Amino acid sequence: MRHLERTRVAIIGGGPAGLLLALILHRAGIDSVVLERGSRDDVLSRMGADMLEKATTDILRTAGVGGRLDREGLVHDGFDIAWRGEVLHIPLRDLTGKTVTIYGETELTHDLYDALDEAGVPIIHGAEDVRPQDIATDAPFVTFHTVDGEHSLECDYVAGCDGFHGVCRQTIPADLLRTFERVYPFGWLGILTRTPPIQDELIYAHHARGFALCSLRSPQLSRYCLQCDAGDDVANWPDERFFDELEARLPVAVAAHLKRGPSIEKSIAPLRSFVAEPMGHGRLFLAGDAAHIVPPAGAKGLNLAVSDVHYLSRALIAHYRDKDDQLLKTYSETALARVWKAERFSWWFTSMIHMFGEEGTFSQRIQEAEFDYLAGSQAAQTALAENYVGLPY
Amino acid sequence: MRHLERTRVAIIGGGPAGLLLALILHRAGIDSVVLERGSRDDVLSRMGADMLEKATTDILRTAGVGGRLDREGLVHDGFDIAWRGEVLHIPLRDLTGKTVTIYGETELTHDLYDALDEAGVPIIHGAEDVRPQDIATDAPFVTFHTVDGEHSLECDYVAGCDGFHGVCRQTIPADLLRTFERVYPFGWLGILTRTPPIQDELIYAHHARGFALCSLRSPQLSRYCLQCDAGDDVANWPDERFFDELEARLPVAVAAHLKRGPSIEKSIAPLRSFVAEPMGHGRLFLAGDAAHIVPPAGAKGLNLAVSDVHYLSRALIAHYRDKDDQLLKTYSETALARVWKAERFSWWFTSMIHMFGEEGTFSQRIQEAEFDYLAGSQAAQTALAENYVGLPY
Repeated sequence: MRHLERTRVAIIGGGPAGLLLALILHRAGIDSVVLERGSRDDVLSRMGADMLEKATTDILRTAGVGGRLDREGLVHDGFDIAWRGEVLHIPLRDLTGKTVTIYGETELTHDLYDALDEAGVPIIHGAEDVRPQDIATDAPFVTFHTVDGEHSLECDYVAGCDGFHGVCRQTIPADLLRTFERVYPFGWLGILTRTPPIQDELIYAHHARGFALCSLRSPQLSRYCLQCDAGDDVANWPDERFFDELEARLPVAVAAHLKRGPSIEKSIAPLRSFVAEPMGHGRLFLAGDAAHIVPPAGAKGLNLAVSDVHYLSRALIAHYRDKDDQLLKTYSETALARVWKAERFSWWFTSMIHMFGEEGTFSQRIQEAEFDYLAGSQAAQTALAENYVGLPY
Repeated sequence: MRHLERTRVAIIGGGPAGLLLALILHRAGIDSVVLERGSRDDVLSRMGADMLEKATTDILRTAGVGGRLDREGLVHDGFDIAWRGEVLHIPLRDLTGKTVTIYGETELTHDLYDALDEAGVPIIHGAEDVRPQDIATDAPFVTFHTVDGEHSLECDYVAGCDGFHGVCRQTIPADLLRTFERVYPFGWLGILTRTPPIQDELIYAHHARGFALCSLRSPQLSRYCLQCDAGDDVANWPDERFFDELEARLPVAVAAHLKRGPSIEKSIAPLRSFVAEPMGHGRLFLAGDAAHIVPPAGAKGLNLAVSDVHYLSRALIAHYRDKDDQLLKTYSETALARVWKAERFSWWFTSMIHMFGEEGTFSQRIQEAEFDYLAGSQAAQTALAENYVGLPY
């Protein structure tokens, strides 16, 4: 086993969370190494979220990756909810003074790579069998192998940014880890098309046939999603069937603006709520999907990863710069307080807009009453809007 | 069978809904007869709600029963929610410009009896085996018997104000009636004591041992409720055990003000959400508990009965005064729109403040996140407050 090197923070996972953490630490003069199993192309081919909260874009700008985001990101002042043929506009800016920005996760990852390359922060791709070791001691290290052989990376801290299926969460002793989970009885069938979006802003459509989302990545790139059976297969959904079904779930006046086009991506994703507590153990800290998953409606996943990274980087900077470990000690608690509120919102929004196969039941009528109440209440719309644009840090 | 008489509106049920309807119709010069199975003492001994929305007190004043209500009713500007040892004040007046009034349902029933006696509106007590007949024809009538014998009361319309277990809802043909129901897995053990309340305003306490409510009827009459097993028995709850349990569920600083005293009433009530649609058929119209039940948290039951009576009396007045049947035709739809919003709120509030035996689950943590979010969000508090004081008619 060859000693690759020593670093202060070993970051496991080269998705947006890990890359952003490396960049923020670098700006503060704290060296780190990012270990990523896939190639750069693998990372850049991952599907991701499209919508950034105001606080997220602020953090990205401060980290020095706001340039292209500010030029190409689409600022949205609101979004639409459609149900029973009606359309309710939620004016985010009017209700909260804040907006959201449409910017693909892939684009953000590109920007982070560019910034890290320029800064010379090491990112090791193709790192296989990564294992955090001795995390409960003062001398943790991470072992892994690459095409070059076996490696051991000594470090002060390990940041687990390796996603839901990653190794880091499993490194926390099982008797210390509590997990909370809800699996929803449906999935999202999503496509990407090189067509102008149906409208400038997003539409969340509740319909007896199931939920539908009209979203976008850019003025020429549309993303559409349909609620589907959890066990469905993309092979069952040729483009024509997808668009027919999408039209059927939208109000007629809205559907009239749909521009069909060949899908350039098509996939089915399960919907899950998941939280692991605590978000760390010893010298290991989890951030992003490694610790929690939200269902995609409301797009909180990437934003939560960024808020975790914000709290974790702040804590590491306090440690190195001020020799103050208080923020590291409270990192899990601080991050989880925001995580649970976003979990609550994502669960509520998901529950409201999907169909649960309960036509004619008390629950389904309560769901309808929720829309009727929302449509008539500025307070309810403000509560929705303030969660959508992101609760205060 | 003896013809008792003929009236325009036969009102079945002499609770607050039926009595108020009779009074409002009398003020408009429309004669009615109230048929009540129990004695006046029976009616006055029924437990009921304590809290009136602003719109409810406005309607009562307009009907001429606002005098004692305005003198003796306690205007509440807010209420408290306690959880995890913390207390959150919901300032109703600040958030909504409205207040609620504490006034026992029994007191209101007294006032209604007094006003109807003075007006000479006939109330027939001890009316047994009441049956609305031919409600789908233009010549409905109601049969019943009293100690004097059998009676048949001809009428233009039948108002079904006979509560959840009454006959009126069952008169609607089964193939036309849809019902929606949720039964909660717990009950409320409630007591009334002749002691000063623990504080001026209500406290809704969420606690791992179960929900507790500190309410009141007057400055010398306290009402306390505990979440209990649905199948529990009051015999298991001597006063001392009740108060010990109540104290254990309140924040220590709050419990310090509890004044114990012998219970003068003690009962266990199941918690249920229920809605029947439509709220009428032919010349029969349902109002209040005959059509819908809410769980008691938030005290919407009596207020919904009053809003039904408001809509129904308005429709009957339009029929007799203006020969306009439009409001009668839309009565069910109009009343149900408000009912469903109150059902939504009562379900949500009930779900938030009770324990569902799910300690350590995703649902229970979401419930905690609801409190944390509520505590930090003016929009969420306003949404709660505007439902609590009553949504607009």
